[in-house]
Amino acid sequence: MGKNVTQKLLGVHLLSGEMKAGEEIGLKIDQTLTQDATGTLVMLELEAMGIDRVKTEVSAQYVDHNLIQEDYKNPDDHLFLQSAAQRFGIYYSKPGNGVSHPVHMQRLGKPGKTLLGSDSHTCAAGSLGMFAMGAGGIEVAMAAAGEPIYVKMPKVWGVKLTGKLPEWVSAKDIILELLRRHGVKGGVGKVIEYYGPALADLTAMDRHVIANMGAELGATTSVFPSDEQVRHFLEMEERGEDWIELSADEDASYEEHEEINLSELEPMIARPSSPGNVVTVREAAGEPIYQSYIGSSANPGYRDFAIVAQMMKGRSIAPGVSLDINPSSRETLSDLINTGNLSHLIDAGARLHQAGCNGCIGMGQAPASGKNSLRTVPRNFPGRSGTLDDSVFLCSPETAAASALTGKITDPRELDMEYPQIDIPKPAINNELLMHPYPFEEAKEIRLSKGPNIEAIPEFDALPDELEVTVGFKTGDDVSTDEILAGGGRVLPFRSNLPEISKFTFEKLDESYYKRAMESRDQGGHAVIGGSNYGQGSSREHAALAPRYLGLRAAIVKDFARIHWQNLVNFGVLPLTFVNESDYDLIEQDDVIVFKDIRRSLQESSVLTAEIKGKSTIEVEHAMSGRQIEIMLDGGMINWIKKGETQH
Amino acid sequence: MGKNVTQKLLGVHLLSGEMKAGEEIGLKIDQTLTQDATGTLVMLELEAMGIDRVKTEVSAQYVDHNLIQEDYKNPDDHLFLQSAAQRFGIYYSKPGNGVSHPVHMQRLGKPGKTLLGSDSHTCAAGSLGMFAMGAGGIEVAMAAAGEPIYVKMPKVWGVKLTGKLPEWVSAKDIILELLRRHGVKGGVGKVIEYYGPALADLTAMDRHVIANMGAELGATTSVFPSDEQVRHFLEMEERGEDWIELSADEDASYEEHEEINLSELEPMIARPSSPGNVVTVREAAGEPIYQSYIGSSANPGYRDFAIVAQMMKGRSIAPGVSLDINPSSRETLSDLINTGNLSHLIDAGARLHQAGCNGCIGMGQAPASGKNSLRTVPRNFPGRSGTLDDSVFLCSPETAAASALTGKITDPRELDMEYPQIDIPKPAINNELLMHPYPFEEAKEIRLSKGPNIEAIPEFDALPDELEVTVGFKTGDDVSTDEILAGGGRVLPFRSNLPEISKFTFEKLDESYYKRAMESRDQGGHAVIGGSNYGQGSSREHAALAPRYLGLRAAIVKDFARIHWQNLVNFGVLPLTFVNESDYDLIEQDDVIVFKDIRRSLQESSVLTAEIKGKSTIEVEHAMSGRQIEIMLDGGMINWIKKGETQH
Repeated sequence: MGKNVTQKLLGVHLLSGEMKAGEEIGLKIDQTLTQDATGTLVMLELEAMGIDRVKTEVSAQYVDHNLIQEDYKNPDDHLFLQSAAQRFGIYYSKPGNGVSHPVHMQRLGKPGKTLLGSDSHTCAAGSLGMFAMGAGGIEVAMAAAGEPIYVKMPKVWGVKLTGKLPEWVSAKDIILELLRRHGVKGGVGKVIEYYGPALADLTAMDRHVIANMGAELGATTSVFPSDEQVRHFLEMEERGEDWIELSADEDASYEEHEEINLSELEPMIARPSSPGNVVTVREAAGEPIYQSYIGSSANPGYRDFAIVAQMMKGRSIAPGVSLDINPSSRETLSDLINTGNLSHLIDAGARLHQAGCNGCIGMGQAPASGKNSLRTVPRNFPGRSGTLDDSVFLCSPETAAASALTGKITDPRELDMEYPQIDIPKPAINNELLMHPYPFEEAKEIRLSKGPNIEAIPEFDALPDELEVTVGFKTGDDVSTDEILAGGGRVLPFRSNLPEISKFTFEKLDESYYKRAMESRDQGGHAVIGGSNYGQGSSREHAALAPRYLGLRAAIVKDFARIHWQNLVNFGVLPLTFVNESDYDLIEQDDVIVFKDIRRSLQESSVLTAEIKGKSTIEVEHAMSGRQIEIMLDGGMINWIKKGETQH
Repeated sequence: MGKNVTQKLLGVHLLSGEMKAGEEIGLKIDQTLTQDATGTLVMLELEAMGIDRVKTEVSAQYVDHNLIQEDYKNPDDHLFLQSAAQRFGIYYSKPGNGVSHPVHMQRLGKPGKTLLGSDSHTCAAGSLGMFAMGAGGIEVAMAAAGEPIYVKMPKVWGVKLTGKLPEWVSAKDIILELLRRHGVKGGVGKVIEYYGPALADLTAMDRHVIANMGAELGATTSVFPSDEQVRHFLEMEERGEDWIELSADEDASYEEHEEINLSELEPMIARPSSPGNVVTVREAAGEPIYQSYIGSSANPGYRDFAIVAQMMKGRSIAPGVSLDINPSSRETLSDLINTGNLSHLIDAGARLHQAGCNGCIGMGQAPASGKNSLRTVPRNFPGRSGTLDDSVFLCSPETAAASALTGKITDPRELDMEYPQIDIPKPAINNELLMHPYPFEEAKEIRLSKGPNIEAIPEFDALPDELEVTVGFKTGDDVSTDEILAGGGRVLPFRSNLPEISKFTFEKLDESYYKRAMESRDQGGHAVIGGSNYGQGSSREHAALAPRYLGLRAAIVKDFARIHWQNLVNFGVLPLTFVNESDYDLIEQDDVIVFKDIRRSLQESSVLTAEIKGKSTIEVEHAMSGRQIEIMLDGGMINWIKKGETQH
C-alpha cells in the first residue's frame, strides 16, 4: 500500500515503536529550534547535562520574543543565549533578525527532515515538507543532545485542496475555514496532511500560514509535500541543493478525510476571543476598529506585507486607526524597502515596529480599553494582547488592510479597488541574519555569559531507596500550571533563575507554601496531594522544575493532565495516582508519608505502597514506561542524559 | 545700544517687568508643545480650567514617550490625548510620527516666536530663532489658555563660533565641548546665544543638536539667529513663508562671553554617568561596547542617520554589538528609505525601532549588566537607560558608528575610511504627520475619550478664611519630589489618575501617610512640616497635586526648592517658612495648627500667625507675589484661570 507524506517522514526517522495511531514511537530529530522565552532554560539544561556540543544536524537559537529591554534582564538573556549558542554549536539569530519560524524556513529548514522546537508554532515548518513539532524545553534539549523523542503516533488527517483562491481571499482564509469547520480541538491527536491540485498555486510561504495555525486546531503538526513550489522557494533563497522531492504515493491513504474547494472560499475572520470563533468577514463587517496589526508567524511572508502596502499605495489609513507593521524578518524588511512597499506603508500613516513577535505575544501594541483590534496573528486568547478584556479578531492581511482604510471591519471585496498582483522579488539574503556555529575547538573555550539574573540549574539527586516526605500542600481538582507557577510579566523575567522564580510557586493558592517547602528540602523533601486533572493548562516546565527545586519528590493525585505529568517525570518527581480515590480524603497537610524500597518497587510493579504515618497504609500507582522509570531513578532527565554521556 | 537676538525675542513678547537679569518678567507665549508623558495632565488641567479652545497661535500634542503598549493604559492615554487635541484646537501627532522636538521644528516651529513646552528639551527650537523653554505642565496649560508666563530674566551668554568643523567632527562635539568647559550647571540662569562666522556652515538641524543639549548645561534656553540656514530649512520643508530674518545688531552685547574655534575641535564623549563628564574620544578609546544607539532629540536630523548609514555601507557591525536605530520622525524615516540609507543600516545588521523617544527615556533598549552603551542621546544620568548600574556614554553619530564597526570605543578618525559627504534630500513631507486642529464648531462637540485609568482632575476649593489643620507628616531636610511622589514604571502609568497616583504619596518615607491624609480631607485638611531644601529634584507636578488632593493645605518648612515651591502655589497649597527656624522643633505629627483670618492676612503681610493648639503661637512667612496670592486665594491656578474665563 502506498504511503502518505507523514508516513514517509516518520518512517525514515523511526527509532522505536510501530506507526499505529496511539502507539508510542521514538523519533530521530534532525533539527531543533529554540526562541528566547523558552530557550534560556533549554541552554541551562544543556549545561546541566554536561553537553559539549549538540548532536543534531542543525540547532538554531532565535531571539524574537522578549525584545523590550526595560532593564538588564532581557539583554542579559540575549547575551547568555548568544554565548550558549557559541558554546554548544548552535546557530544564533540576534534581536532584530525576526521571528524564528519564517527565518528558520528561509535559512535552515529542509524538506524530509524532522524539527523539534520549544515553541508551539514550530509546526509551521511543515510548509517545507518537514515533520516539525513544538515541545517542552527539556524535550528539545534532549533532542539537541541526540536522544530520540517519544510521541504517540498521531492519526493522519488528509485535507484535499481543490479549486483556486478567488481574488481578495488568501491562505489565512483557508486555515480559518478549517478552524470554522472543526474548532480548536479538531486536530488533537492528528497530523494534518495537505494534498490535492490546488497546492500547485500555494507558495511555500502560503503553506507556512496554513501549517503555522495548525497549532490552533490542536494538531500534533501539519505536513505539506515538498514539490515544485518548495523547490522554487529554496532556489530563491539560494538553497536549491537542500531540496528533495517528497510527496504522497498515488495510492496513499489517510485515516480521516477533508476537502476544501478554494474557489468557494470568501474572507473569514475569527471573532474574540478564540481562533475557533470563525465567521465570514461579511458577518462581522461594520464594527469600528482601533488597530490593524500586520505581522507574526501566521502571516510572515513578503506577500503578506506587500499586499497591504499595495492596498495602501497613495491612500491614507482612517484617522485614529493604528496600523502596526511588524516585519517578520530582516530579509522581508529589506525586500519591502527595496520594492518601495515600505514607503507606501509609511506614507499611508503606518507605525513601523522592530522585526519580531512583538504584540502577537503581548510585548507591546496592546489595544486600548474596549476597542477592536484586527490582527493577522495566529491567536486571540483573552488578554493575550496585554489588555485584559481585549477584543482581538484574526484575519488575512487583505481584510486587515481594508479595515484600516475604512476604520471599520471591512470585507476587502467591498473596496472599490483592483486586487493587487504581488510579484515576489529575489529575496535580500543577508549574511547578518545568523551567527553560524563555532568550530568545536573554538566553541569549547566559550564561557557562558550569565548576568546576575541567570542561574545554572542546580543538581538534583537520584531517587533514594526510601522516601520519607511531609505533605507540603493539598489541593483540590483542576489545579492549572498557572496556579502552580504563574506566567506573565511579574514572574517570567525570572525564567532563567530557578531560586527566584520558585518563590512564586503555588502563591495564588497558598502564600505559605514556599516557606514550608524550603524547610522540607533538607529533611527528605515533601509531597503534594491533588485532585482530578492536576496540572492542566500551559506546558510551562517551570511548574514542575520549581517545586522540584523546593524539595517536591512526589505528586499524589486523582489524575493528571498529560503534559504536566510528562514534565514531572522529566524533572524526577514521582507522578502517582490513588488506587482508591477515597484515600485522597485520608491525607492532610503535614502528614508524613513513607515509601520503602521504592527503587526496586518501581521496577517491579506499577503499584507502590505508601505508609501514611500514624494513619494507614495505602496503594498508589504510576503509568511510567520502562524508559521513564530509568529517568525517575536517575532523578530526572538531566541526570539520565548525563549518565548516558559519560557511559558512551 | 544694539540688541542681541534674545533681547529682540523677549522685547516683542514682554507683557510685564523689566528685562534686567534676575527680575521677574511676564511673556506672551505664541506656541505650546506637550508630549504624552506630561501632556495628559496638561489636558486634564485644560479641562478643569473649563477652556473651550487654546488661545495660542499654535499648540501641538505629540505622542513619543510612552509608546510601549503592554496593557490598555498607554493606548488609552493616546486616545485621550487625541480627543483632547481635537476638543481644544490642538495639533495632534500620533504614535509613530516621531519625537516632538524635530517634528515641531519640521512642521510648526517659526522664527521670532515664543514656545513653551512640558518637556525639558523644548529649548531645541532655539535652532529656528525661537525663544523656547521647558516648563511644568500647568504653566504650559496656562500658556495654552492665553495667560502670560512669568520667568526670571536670564543673563545672556554669548557664544561665538569661529573656524570650521574638521572631518569626523560634528555639531554634537560642539555642545559636548561646551559641557566639558562648563559642566552641567554652567548655564543656570542664562540664555546661551550663539553667533559668529561659523554659523554659516551649521544647518538648522545641526543647531537643533546644540540647542537641545543646552538643557544639559542647565540653561533657561539656547538661541540662534534666524538666517539663511533657517530660511533654507524652512524652504525645504515648504514653509518658506514662515521665515523672518532675526539676528543680533552689529553693536549687540552679551553679559557673558565664550568662543569656540570649531577648527580646533575633535570627537568628544561624555563618560558615565553625567553629560558633564566630557573627554576626547581618544581618551576613552578601546573600551568594549555592547550597544551603539542612534537617535533621540539630541541627534535627530537626516544627516545624523545618513552619516551612520554611509559609514555602514557595505560593511557589517562587530559581532555581538547591538546597533539600535531610532528614527526621530516619520519624515526622516522616509528620507532614509528613499535615499537607500535605511538599507545600508539593515544590511549592516542594525536593529530598526519605531520612531520615537524609546530608549533615550528608558523605554526599551536597556543595556545588559555591566556593558557599555554608546548613545547619541542628550543624557546619561545613572539608570536612565532602564538598567540601574548602567554605563552610558554620549557621543556623535560618527563616534557611535565607528565604535559599532569595531566593537570598542573608537575615534572615527582612526577608521581607514573617507569622511562621507551627506547631501540632504528634499524631505518627504507627509500629510499623515499631524492631525490639524478641528474647526471650533466641530471641536466643541468632541467628548474627551477617557479609559478606566483616566480621571478628571477634581475641583479644589478656594482658600477659606480660617484653616484648622492637623500635622499629617513631619520630614527632615532635603526631601526630594521623588520621596514625595516617585516616578518610574510602577507609579507613572497612573499619571492621568489622581486618586490612584496619590496612594503613592510619601510612601518611601511613611506608608501610613496616605491613610492619615485621606482622613484629614473632610476635616479641614492637613499640613506637612519640613526641613531645609524641601521638594528638591524633579519638577514633577504630581508631588504637589497628589498631596493637595489628599487634603494638604500648607507646607511649613525651613526653606523650599524653587520648582516645588512654584508647584505648591500653582495647586493652592500654602508654601510657608518659619520666621524662627527653631519653631520646627516645636511641632509634632498630629498637632493641630490654626490660621485665622488668613485671606486678609495674606493680602496685607508676608508674615502670618499660626496657633499650634495647646502649645504656642508662631510666625511663618511666604514669598508669593501679588499675582500668586490671588492664585492662592482662588485655591490654585486652575480656579484662578477659570474665574478669569468667566469674567472676561
